[in-house]
Amino acid sequence: MLLHLSSWPEIDAQINSDAPLAKTVIVPIGSNEQHGPTGLLGTDWLCPEIIAHAAEKTDGDLMIAPTFNIGMAQHHLAFAGTISLRPSTFMAAITDWVASLSRHGFERIYFLNGHGGNVATIEATFSEIYADWSFIGDRPDTILKLRNWWDLPGVQKLCEDIFPVGHGSHATPSEIAVTQAGYPDRVKTADYSPRIAPNGPIRDALDYRARFPDGRIGSDPAQASPEKGQRIIDAAIPALIADISAFAAEVLP
Amino acid sequence: MLLHLSSWPEIDAQINSDAPLAKTVIVPIGSNEQHGPTGLLGTDWLCPEIIAHAAEKTDGDLMIAPTFNIGMAQHHLAFAGTISLRPSTFMAAITDWVASLSRHGFERIYFLNGHGGNVATIEATFSEIYADWSFIGDRPDTILKLRNWWDLPGVQKLCEDIFPVGHGSHATPSEIAVTQAGYPDRVKTADYSPRIAPNGPIRDALDYRARFPDGRIGSDPAQASPEKGQRIIDAAIPALIADISAFAAEVLP
Amino acid sequence: MLLHLSSWPEIDAQINSDAPLAKTVIVPIGSNEQHGPTGLLGTDWLCPEIIAHAAEKTDGDLMIAPTFNIGMAQHHLAFAGTISLRPSTFMAAITDWVASLSRHGFERIYFLNGHGGNVATIEATFSEIYADWSFIGDRPDTILKLRNWWDLPGVQKLCEDIFPVGHGSHATPSEIAVTQAGYPDRVKTADYSPRIAPNGPIRDALDYRARFPDGRIGSDPAQASPEKGQRIIDAAIPALIADISAFAAEVLP
Amino acid sequence: MLLHLSSWPEIDAQINSDAPLAKTVIVPIGSNEQHGPTGLLGTDWLCPEIIAHAAEKTDGDLMIAPTFNIGMAQHHLAFAGTISLRPSTFMAAITDWVASLSRHGFERIYFLNGHGGNVATIEATFSEIYADWSFIGDRPDTILKLRNWWDLPGVQKLCEDIFPVGHGSHATPSEIAVTQAGYPDRVKTADYSPRIAPNGPIRDALDYRARFPDGRIGSDPAQASPEKGQRIIDAAIPALIADISAFAAEVLP
Amino acid sequence: MLLHLSSWPEIDAQINSDAPLAKTVIVPIGSNEQHGPTGLLGTDWLCPEIIAHAAEKTDGDLMIAPTFNIGMAQHHLAFAGTISLRPSTFMAAITDWVASLSRHGFERIYFLNGHGGNVATIEATFSEIYADWSFIGDRPDTILKLRNWWDLPGVQKLCEDIFPVGHGSHATPSEIAVTQAGYPDRVKTADYSPRIAPNGPIRDALDYRARFPDGRIGSDPAQASPEKGQRIIDAAIPALIADISAFAAEVLP
Amino acid sequence: MLLHLSSWPEIDAQINSDAPLAKTVIVPIGSNEQHGPTGLLGTDWLCPEIIAHAAEKTDGDLMIAPTFNIGMAQHHLAFAGTISLRPSTFMAAITDWVASLSRHGFERIYFLNGHGGNVATIEATFSEIYADWSFIGDRPDTILKLRNWWDLPGVQKLCEDIFPVGHGSHATPSEIAVTQAGYPDRVKTADYSPRIAPNGPIRDALDYRARFPDGRIGSDPAQASPEKGQRIIDAAIPALIADISAFAAEVLP
Repeated sequence: MLLHLSSWPEIDAQINSDAPLAKTVIVPIGSNEQHGPTGLLGTDWLCPEIIAHAAEKTDGDLMIAPTFNIGMAQHHLAFAGTISLRPSTFMAAITDWVASLSRHGFERIYFLNGHGGNVATIEATFSEIYADWSFIGDRPDTILKLRNWWDLPGVQKLCEDIFPVGHGSHATPSEIAVTQAGYPDRVKTADYSPRIAPNGPIRDALDYRARFPDGRIGSDPAQASPEKGQRIIDAAIPALIADISAFAAEVLP
Repeated sequence: MLLHLSSWPEIDAQINSDAPLAKTVIVPIGSNEQHGPTGLLGTDWLCPEIIAHAAEKTDGDLMIAPTFNIGMAQHHLAFAGTISLRPSTFMAAITDWVASLSRHGFERIYFLNGHGGNVATIEATFSEIYADWSFIGDRPDTILKLRNWWDLPGVQKLCEDIFPVGHGSHATPSEIAVTQAGYPDRVKTADYSPRIAPNGPIRDALDYRARFPDGRIGSDPAQASPEKGQRIIDAAIPALIADISAFAAEVLP
Repeated sequence: MLLHLSSWPEIDAQINSDAPLAKTVIVPIGSNEQHGPTGLLGTDWLCPEIIAHAAEKTDGDLMIAPTFNIGMAQHHLAFAGTISLRPSTFMAAITDWVASLSRHGFERIYFLNGHGGNVATIEATFSEIYADWSFIGDRPDTILKLRNWWDLPGVQKLCEDIFPVGHGSHATPSEIAVTQAGYPDRVKTADYSPRIAPNGPIRDALDYRARFPDGRIGSDPAQASPEKGQRIIDAAIPALIADISAFAAEVLP
Repeated sequence: MLLHLSSWPEIDAQINSDAPLAKTVIVPIGSNEQHGPTGLLGTDWLCPEIIAHAAEKTDGDLMIAPTFNIGMAQHHLAFAGTISLRPSTFMAAITDWVASLSRHGFERIYFLNGHGGNVATIEATFSEIYADWSFIGDRPDTILKLRNWWDLPGVQKLCEDIFPVGHGSHATPSEIAVTQAGYPDRVKTADYSPRIAPNGPIRDALDYRARFPDGRIGSDPAQASPEKGQRIIDAAIPALIADISAFAAEVLP
Repeated sequence: MLLHLSSWPEIDAQINSDAPLAKTVIVPIGSNEQHGPTGLLGTDWLCPEIIAHAAEKTDGDLMIAPTFNIGMAQHHLAFAGTISLRPSTFMAAITDWVASLSRHGFERIYFLNGHGGNVATIEATFSEIYADWSFIGDRPDTILKLRNWWDLPGVQKLCEDIFPVGHGSHATPSEIAVTQAGYPDRVKTADYSPRIAPNGPIRDALDYRARFPDGRIGSDPAQASPEKGQRIIDAAIPALIADISAFAAEVLP
Repeated sequence: MLLHLSSWPEIDAQINSDAPLAKTVIVPIGSNEQHGPTGLLGTDWLCPEIIAHAAEKTDGDLMIAPTFNIGMAQHHLAFAGTISLRPSTFMAAITDWVASLSRHGFERIYFLNGHGGNVATIEATFSEIYADWSFIGDRPDTILKLRNWWDLPGVQKLCEDIFPVGHGSHATPSEIAVTQAGYPDRVKTADYSPRIAPNGPIRDALDYRARFPDGRIGSDPAQASPEKGQRIIDAAIPALIADISAFAAEVLP
């Protein structure tokens, strides 16, 4: 079910059903940030949305929340169109999403993440949320899981098989391909120079732009195609369903 | 242009162009909250998104940011599927969106809002942002405008003409109709009882549910249809383009 | 009762009495900000204080808290003497006032407001307070109401009758007149130019000063007099008593 | 000048004058909290207001801001009528007052305090404000001073001379007397038992009420009279004027 | 017991034992800040640590937490090596320490402080912590006490006896001597000019450096010696044990 | 140099010297938390302190700040003696440390970390700090680096060579051994059951205790010895010096 295209009685009925996934919800989460000369600014939130929505078509019991589309992208702010939350803001917003979903009886919240730069802040937020319980010695109502879509079992391996050279870590051909499969009428091209972008550390926005002038890190996105993107999506769907099912079935100590 | 389906060089070129709307951006903003027995949970963020995206098809120079899809909906939290930010979180998030967009050279940010419950917090946020400048005696880089889609010139009048009885103020036939036009395969029906929902004050979530058992306030959404929704959208498009153009053209003192 | 001129046993006795207003308290709330060439900086907190204290003389069962005298006035900061809280600070302070009054058994808190610029932040604060309850699914101990003094039944109409032209929206002859009635030895005069001030949008402080050079918006305060102010006060007193009585008597669902 | 009973041009003229006190402002600051069986809840903000306003009648160049009437009184919350800010809220509010007054050109802000329980938080706030400058290595625009009214030169000695026994530290006969002089029609009496209240540490509200059942600490307020209060006020006036003048005249290194 | 050199079962056993100090813990707390030409930057956290650890060797039942080594030192930031928390950060950190220690069953937390500049913020923090209980009308799990090491009974008197002239208030010979006793291989010398440093008010960092060019206030630290430091430590040990024992034995009302 | 055992002129001279490491500072950072039946509660802050202080003896130009001894340990709060900061508090404190050190001219700050649970929050803090610069488009004064001591080149490999079985991830024999080398008189023993602790996910404190009853994760700390700890320290010293030297020498783009 796509939560935002459902009515509240439909959600209510599902949460209170006997379905194995009844009390589990997926939140696609990403970032809106530059992805090199040709990548869509929405790449990092579109990828988990594309995969989650595709999976929901396969298994209608999957509950998909609206997409959390702005994340932690301070290092990309020197490129037009990037929108970033400060980590402290990001933490507050995730906390309120969790409190809302937990309020309705979702006992397991699974964040399907599309942006590596989100990971530290999301994990810090989980600790912030758990701390409220840990300080008073109670069990939380809800448990939380973070999964990057490329870390779904088998997916990273497939990406590297398809793109053995120039995969890189930002504006990768994998993520570009997934968005090309999702938005084939938005495929863009450019002359990349160099073909494979440089690597280096990530710090503030001006440092980033000085190191990575067109925005890419280590990648050659020219290799992307909608067809390759579809292969990745097709691999991710069953991996996601298996992963979320295991999460929903996990017995707590 | 849809910002999230563009690359950063495309956005950069547009901001630095001579187009009248070059330095102006529209942020569709709403809420994900119950909309009665048949309304989509996403209604309040889908409506401004539907209207803004439709307007962009008419005038490709309109710059549409990703949709800010979670707002201030604490009073709806007793209905499954509602996701709310606390006002303080909402303020922090809007502030970071504004800082990001301002960073790129957008000098005018126009929030096209779909949720009445957002208004107070958005306006308080504008003051919070302006205060940083007012305390030090400088002019802000960016000016901000809030417009509810139903307050676009002529739209509210049209809605009342179409639905002279039972329009109400939550889960209105107008907003339901707009989403039906946008998502015709998601039209839902129910036996409303009473046909026109009651009115009353809005406080906390349990008070709300006690007053408005199915979530509606004063409305009879059974009157909605995709065709009526399309009429509203068609009226909103030119009104939005005119309104944003006037905002972009305003000369500051 | 004026709370600050009472002892704690007196307040304790009143709260625990059978008086219809025993568990209801009025908080006069306003702002300290410029009010044009002749208006007192305290106008916006003096008006609700004057009206509330006058009403208390009529009905001694009214419980009047100390006046909350600094509000949200960032847009007036380019004029000397203005003191403003940031919206976030204002929210925190109101929250602590409410928590304190609620702690003592006041179940209904009525904010009699004297500043239009406060409205958005006060309403956002109410939502912030209610959200604590809505997230956990409990009923709050206290319900909250905001009423601008000019919105007391009949008052705005009277003001417009007295000042049919040049009432405006800031440094209005109505509010100036009320303070003249309260502080007749502080009546000030000036040559207003133009006689009726301009109108326009409200943004940051420098923008405000550029648009409204002497601080007024749309008003001609030369029309004010202590006598007219007393007429407004005399109309506001019964309206306030009726309004607070209805609030106190409201049965919750 | 009483700031709130002045217009902005009057304040503007004074700040830009050559008067020795032109750029100095006094903020009466206190608390609204229980003061034993007979003391006014407003005692701690009324005392500095009474003294400051009396001093202003002696020397019209004194600039008196509105009274900051709610402070840090968490320990009194078990007594009806007490209103308290959390220290963190109190800090935020003082910070905004200082930023506002500094914005207009006041270079020295003098807090005339009426509540011992405020001292730690006010001093912490001064450090919080200064820290913004210290971290970046600039000089602040404004310097800050805290003075309890009883610490004005000679005042505490006078209080102890008048009340050599049973002065105590809360609901003292001195502060009660000052409010009696200011509000002679609000003098209240009670049979105090014991005549002199006990002493002890101050912690949370319930601990406080258990230790000090009627709210007093170490005091016998029955000794207070309006005449004695007037003597204290009369001594405080020249002491305040001398103290603020020295503060205004202090040459910074 | 030194908490950080113990295992959790050891701490658990002690808390649950019948020892009179079982549920009491000492937190040495100070600051890392300049202490004149010869004083160690760590002086203010080393002194309470030295005294507390020495006392623990005398009475092994004393429970000593790790040292809270960074405090409120904004005024020293113009001297290299100073590290300061903002008061608001300091408050948050103390709050979390208290919550953690309280969580394990420590019912009394005793802060042995080494920095006068910490006092206001620590006391404000105690009020912030207590306020959470006072607003809801419950008793806190833990009571808190602040003691400066020089205020331990008899210690200040001894210091003044040893250093009757030039004791001063920052970089005092007493505190320098205590660190010399603790770290005799780190004794430093300098030609102080003037021999006794000036006195004056404390504000921001640049003001401080202008008033106190080498960092000292009113002191002549050349008088310090390891032997004198040891005398102070030897006096502080029994005073600390007596003070903490009285605190642990205090019966709450 | 150990910063806290130096005077400010010594630090000032070093920062302004030509030494390659003059403007670089190491902050040992860890956590105070349970480390199984025998591990010291201070293990995670003692390890980086032991290594950093040992390295400073080898190369006196290394500048070592005081140890940041409390980190993010919410998941260990069900074991006595654990002290944790909330992530948001941890972020604020690190931010103030960075601002202080940066204020003095340290241009590179290297956090030598001893606790895996700190990593996410420290990285989020770096982003929070950088964001202040990224939003305004300036370069930060200081760059930041996080290095876990076991990730120093060659160290993790050595640990696994010494402890090929039962190394685990919490209360590892490596970290226990390092503290045994540092505090050989505090070596503790216990009968571990099971010998090698279980593995599993980390969530809140009660979940943690249910999964890992004695606190260990996957480890057999009985293998630790002071000698093995010294081998690890000896390997870490040159690795740290090389790593910090490379960091200090890095040329920014």
